[in-house]
Amino acid sequence: MVVPLHIQIYKYYSKYPHKMAFDKVTRNDNYSEWYNNLVKNADLAEHSAVKGCMVIKPYGYAIWENMQKALDKMFKDTGHSNAYFPLFVPKSLFEKEEKNAEGFAKECAVVTHYRLKNDPDNPGKLMVDPNSKLEEELIVRPTSEAIIWNTYKNWIQSYRDLPILINQWANVVRWEMRTRLFLRTAEFLWQEGHTAHATKEEALEETKQMLEVYAHFAENFMAVPVIKGVKSEKERFAGADDTYCIEGMMQDGKALQMGTSHFLGQNFAKAFDVKFQSKEGKLEHVWATSWGVSTRLMGALIMVHSDDEGLVLPPKLAPIHAVIVPVYKTDEEFTLVSEKAKAIQKDLQDAGLTVKFDNRDAYKPGYKFAEWELKGVPVRIAIGPRDLANNTVELARRDTKTKEFISIENVVSHTVKLMDEIQQNLFERAKNFRAEKMWEVNSWDEFVDVVDKREGFAIAHWDGTGETEEKIKELTKATIRCIPFDAKEEQGNCILSGKPSSKRVVFAKAY
Amino acid sequence: MVVPLHIQIYKYYSKYPHKMAFDKVTRNDNYSEWYNNLVKNADLAEHSAVKGCMVIKPYGYAIWENMQKALDKMFKDTGHSNAYFPLFVPKSLFEKEEKNAEGFAKECAVVTHYRLKNDPDNPGKLMVDPNSKLEEELIVRPTSEAIIWNTYKNWIQSYRDLPILINQWANVVRWEMRTRLFLRTAEFLWQEGHTAHATKEEALEETKQMLEVYAHFAENFMAVPVIKGVKSEKERFAGADDTYCIEGMMQDGKALQMGTSHFLGQNFAKAFDVKFQSKEGKLEHVWATSWGVSTRLMGALIMVHSDDEGLVLPPKLAPIHAVIVPVYKTDEEFTLVSEKAKAIQKDLQDAGLTVKFDNRDAYKPGYKFAEWELKGVPVRIAIGPRDLANNTVELARRDTKTKEFISIENVVSHTVKLMDEIQQNLFERAKNFRAEKMWEVNSWDEFVDVVDKREGFAIAHWDGTGETEEKIKELTKATIRCIPFDAKEEQGNCILSGKPSSKRVVFAKAY
Repeated sequence: MVVPLHIQIYKYYSKYPHKMAFDKVTRNDNYSEWYNNLVKNADLAEHSAVKGCMVIKPYGYAIWENMQKALDKMFKDTGHSNAYFPLFVPKSLFEKEEKNAEGFAKECAVVTHYRLKNDPDNPGKLMVDPNSKLEEELIVRPTSEAIIWNTYKNWIQSYRDLPILINQWANVVRWEMRTRLFLRTAEFLWQEGHTAHATKEEALEETKQMLEVYAHFAENFMAVPVIKGVKSEKERFAGADDTYCIEGMMQDGKALQMGTSHFLGQNFAKAFDVKFQSKEGKLEHVWATSWGVSTRLMGALIMVHSDDEGLVLPPKLAPIHAVIVPVYKTDEEFTLVSEKAKAIQKDLQDAGLTVKFDNRDAYKPGYKFAEWELKGVPVRIAIGPRDLANNTVELARRDTKTKEFISIENVVSHTVKLMDEIQQNLFERAKNFRAEKMWEVNSWDEFVDVVDKREGFAIAHWDGTGETEEKIKELTKATIRCIPFDAKEEQGNCILSGKPSSKRVVFAKAY
Repeated sequence: MVVPLHIQIYKYYSKYPHKMAFDKVTRNDNYSEWYNNLVKNADLAEHSAVKGCMVIKPYGYAIWENMQKALDKMFKDTGHSNAYFPLFVPKSLFEKEEKNAEGFAKECAVVTHYRLKNDPDNPGKLMVDPNSKLEEELIVRPTSEAIIWNTYKNWIQSYRDLPILINQWANVVRWEMRTRLFLRTAEFLWQEGHTAHATKEEALEETKQMLEVYAHFAENFMAVPVIKGVKSEKERFAGADDTYCIEGMMQDGKALQMGTSHFLGQNFAKAFDVKFQSKEGKLEHVWATSWGVSTRLMGALIMVHSDDEGLVLPPKLAPIHAVIVPVYKTDEEFTLVSEKAKAIQKDLQDAGLTVKFDNRDAYKPGYKFAEWELKGVPVRIAIGPRDLANNTVELARRDTKTKEFISIENVVSHTVKLMDEIQQNLFERAKNFRAEKMWEVNSWDEFVDVVDKREGFAIAHWDGTGETEEKIKELTKATIRCIPFDAKEEQGNCILSGKPSSKRVVFAKAY
């Protein structure tokens, strides 16, 4: 083995925590700049040489892997299987479901040729070989309904072939002009579920079920409280009859759509002519759903919990649960401290935690503390000669930034317990934050005050028309995030038009 | 939940095992047709609407996921981290390492535009918007050295930044004219490791280490014996100083390259100007390796073990270890048999196995037997009323097609033991098969006899020149698969030219 395990990631990606100090911009100074610095300094991702495409760095990718693992298990536990469909969609298939095609046409990367050749005018350079022009252009998938429904067509003849419950982990491309790491990139990673059903009811049930899966993941793994609801017609997925979503609130009071589950009705079945013979012997079109979450979730995770010192990670998604930092002056002290540190590391690992012992000699403890804070490791354990004498360690929580001395015999049980506590605390904290930034508003002035000045979610009556929705967006940049599932029936008047309304919806500025 | 777990995959993807019978072509009849039928009938993959691109179906993908899991662990255990780099490579970066660019130029999918618009001449149709032409064309990655080394350039300043040990799981595109499912497709899935080192020795050690990882995976998980060696200059990866490989033998005696590990020297560091300050304070170019295996391994797995009845899977990669098929006539019998079957299933699951209880009522046991045989499930357990009376089950091994009655109290321990036995037996069987198809040859006639008539590997002396290699290929279609690491020094004469040679190399026809 070339280099010892564990040392790897952190050795070369985190040399400049002082950069954080140098670039230091607080959330209050400039939220957007704070975010960009954090993504860069915590070694999560960076821009690449390809306009709008990101490089997800090892530490960022390790968090994404944890997300994938948890989600994948939930998909399988609800009866889904993974599969893989082509990256490319022939144009003639892409345009079949017209609304879907229209929705994505303006942001499609298009493959037109399949060969390069030497450029006769520029030795050593290549040019696209004009003789390799494709008969039909290929679209790099912005989403896979078209290619998948064209495939399902051959898989479905009878009700016995239904349901089909498939998920795919893949990269997709949507050509965005203004990009931000994780939040909006030309290429991103995601999962897309695509299911086919015999009845409308079953498809609706699936749409709902997968939204619940996403909500469960957001709240119980990411520790991000979400509002579950349905999108207005304007905000609906192109080609869907209904789009369900979960919406989270970031620390700047803006909303971020964290996952969507679409009831596609029979739209794709009709576009691709997918029919099945029912139990009663009739030929009917198949009902469909699709649902997805993406590396955008990384953006939400960062923006909801982190602080001016850096990333804060919920233990369930943290690549490292605890880091042990030795404090010493002499080699002899180092030897003694290391011995104890390694024993604690081993015990914590046996208890199921991922633990790093940061024994780098070139860095001082203070530097290491700042670095692991920047990287959001939930618990830091410091141990020095005085601790050995007192049979204690110093234990610091990343979420509350509190420190306490714990006797060595209790360090494992305490740290394990802390994982639950930190997970829970982050969720409660985010919930409280959201509660303070969410208002029921009953007049236009209140509305503007909330979405513009106080920067939060406005829960308001709306007359249900696209015109009003559009007008509100023009005036305030706020959009309808969703019509919450749990909105109670309540007579009221639209915040803008004054027309009657029977329930409140959630308005906010959004990412 | 819409549909009970487990039932899912198998319910709708495996309706037509009788198709296998209908299409039945044996390995002896036509190996290539046998392979195509098997991939189709065992529901592993199929061709898509996109020329040369495949759909990997759930059962096939489940095997690939097991491969990924095992490999990913081995990569991490040897100190590597996962990351993700862009799908696209700008042409100007792609062409920087000239040999690499030249090697892949003829098979590149090229993105030239980023938008579609409504076609004014064809209502409802789309066309590429000519105004969206990219200033610089983007190549869909056929391999990622270029984009990665352009990134590493910014990550590496000093020896302290080295080594970088990164792996990526990704899709790549190589435009192939003649494609075969898993073996050669325009898009395929793979992993590609890309490492950067301070010294040549360390890079060579890494190259070697990763080949050993691949060999270990091939032999211990896939149960496929491999020859480890180095490629001749002609067969080397474009841009590498040396390519190490593992080569397996398929049942038609052809070779399949199962994985490669490249020592890239300083070629990419020079092309992308990646230098580091050494401990001694000198600026030096970085040393590099890259290594990869792909969904091609699925082809090898299928071709090495399967028989005329269908797929045969080594337990370590099988998505289902054992299937329990109830045998019954009446509802009452079904109830009694099911009760026992479920208890056995539970016990086997508790012992760590993945077990399916195939309680579909619409299919007869014989049909189910054929289906699970086709799908390669290592062990089949049948249980009927007579078994209940005798306190036994009938246990059938997929690899040997032997059956035996086992008393119910021994079924778990026996099945668990069988997993190891089957894994081992498949490996031994493949090794014996290979031994019978591999000959040391000392004359041209013998050579032709082996590679052409007997269809196997010819271990022969070669004069080391590209001309001879080319000539042999023209005459026989056989290529040098590798110069084995363990080839012993031995004076001899080239099989074609008669010139002196100091070691034997492996010749074969190859996929």
